[in-house]
Amino acid sequence: MTTDHPGNPPAERPPGRPRSQEADLAILSAALDLLIEQGAAQLSIEQVARRAGVTRATVYRRFADKTALLVRTLQWANHDQDPAFTGWRDVEHMLGDWAAYLAVPRHRRLLRRLYGSADDYPELVGAYRTVNGGRRAAMVRETLGRARAAGLLPQEVDVEVVERILTGAVLYEVGLEADREDAEAIKAHFIDVIRQIGYRADHITFHSAK
Amino acid sequence: MTTDHPGNPPAERPPGRPRSQEADLAILSAALDLLIEQGAAQLSIEQVARRAGVTRATVYRRFADKTALLVRTLQWANHDQDPAFTGWRDVEHMLGDWAAYLAVPRHRRLLRRLYGSADDYPELVGAYRTVNGGRRAAMVRETLGRARAAGLLPQEVDVEVVERILTGAVLYEVGLEADREDAEAIKAHFIDVIRQIGYRADHITFHSAK
Repeated sequence: MTTDHPGNPPAERPPGRPRSQEADLAILSAALDLLIEQGAAQLSIEQVARRAGVTRATVYRRFADKTALLVRTLQWANHDQDPAFTGWRDVEHMLGDWAAYLAVPRHRRLLRRLYGSADDYPELVGAYRTVNGGRRAAMVRETLGRARAAGLLPQEVDVEVVERILTGAVLYEVGLEADREDAEAIKAHFIDVIRQIGYRADHITFHSAK
Repeated sequence: MTTDHPGNPPAERPPGRPRSQEADLAILSAALDLLIEQGAAQLSIEQVARRAGVTRATVYRRFADKTALLVRTLQWANHDQDPAFTGWRDVEHMLGDWAAYLAVPRHRRLLRRLYGSADDYPELVGAYRTVNGGRRAAMVRETLGRARAAGLLPQEVDVEVVERILTGAVLYEVGLEADREDAEAIKAHFIDVIRQIGYRADHITFHSAK
């Protein structure tokens, strides 16, 4: 998952004068907004420059092309989301965290834009997965493994497959459900899913009872 | 799921002279190809006309705008896929059928294009879901219900939620797995998923053993 209001400038760039950092932030912020609003195919460096209030040359001094700009934008949007975050307390905390993220319409839209750009801009999906896929997927599996060890999931479940199932549930929610800003309703959908896998916790039943 | 080589002209249009039907088919076929190749946002009536070997006026006589053309294209691509089809024999038949469909790269690409066009062209996703969603989802639930009745799925599973889980597994396969044309490997992924829900059939274990 991403956050789109990180506070720090992009990494891998020596700190410049304040004016230069301001331009960096303005460009990345404009690029993220336009990616969400229009998608990668429709977005142009021209538009990003205009929205950021800088010249095209200022953008091109930093990024060779649109793909390089968007890859950096995704890295930036994800980079500082919560450096201290080391995992979720439990399955409910994890699913509630996802639901809160997905209750923000522009987050859902960003995920749809990325999914839809896989054929034309594979680098974007690659950048997103590098940031979110590796470490995050490992934390999901770790959370599921603890639930299994605690007897909340059947002993025979394969946490790698369950991680894929939950990611599929996110894709279903984002792509096939009408956008909703009710995090509790979204979480209830995820709880319904994991209960089919045999997840059992008494206080969960209360939330997802039909 | 769709097929992209239907043989019949679009419905809701009285049969015209053969030349006119030829133009219909050429336009819809060109529109489907361009939708898959480029996505809805990049596609233009101009391109469709050129690809179909007709004038823009010929396209506009039939379709008010791009959205109307693409909605009809999706209806056409799905319309005659198999009118005699009333359902799958069993869960394995169903998942094998999906896997065979998804082993065709242009089918995966079409699904990604639709997913990514949800914000700009909601009518397209709507048209696809009208064709595929209602009847097909009911057949999926029916197939799952029979498996449950036969003791192949736990009695407590909710077939509506399992249908969503399997659709999520399709979205995962199409969006997050590298494109693969090996239907058996894709089917094994789906079998892995449904086994987490407690699906048990001895002859399945053979296919999906790790």
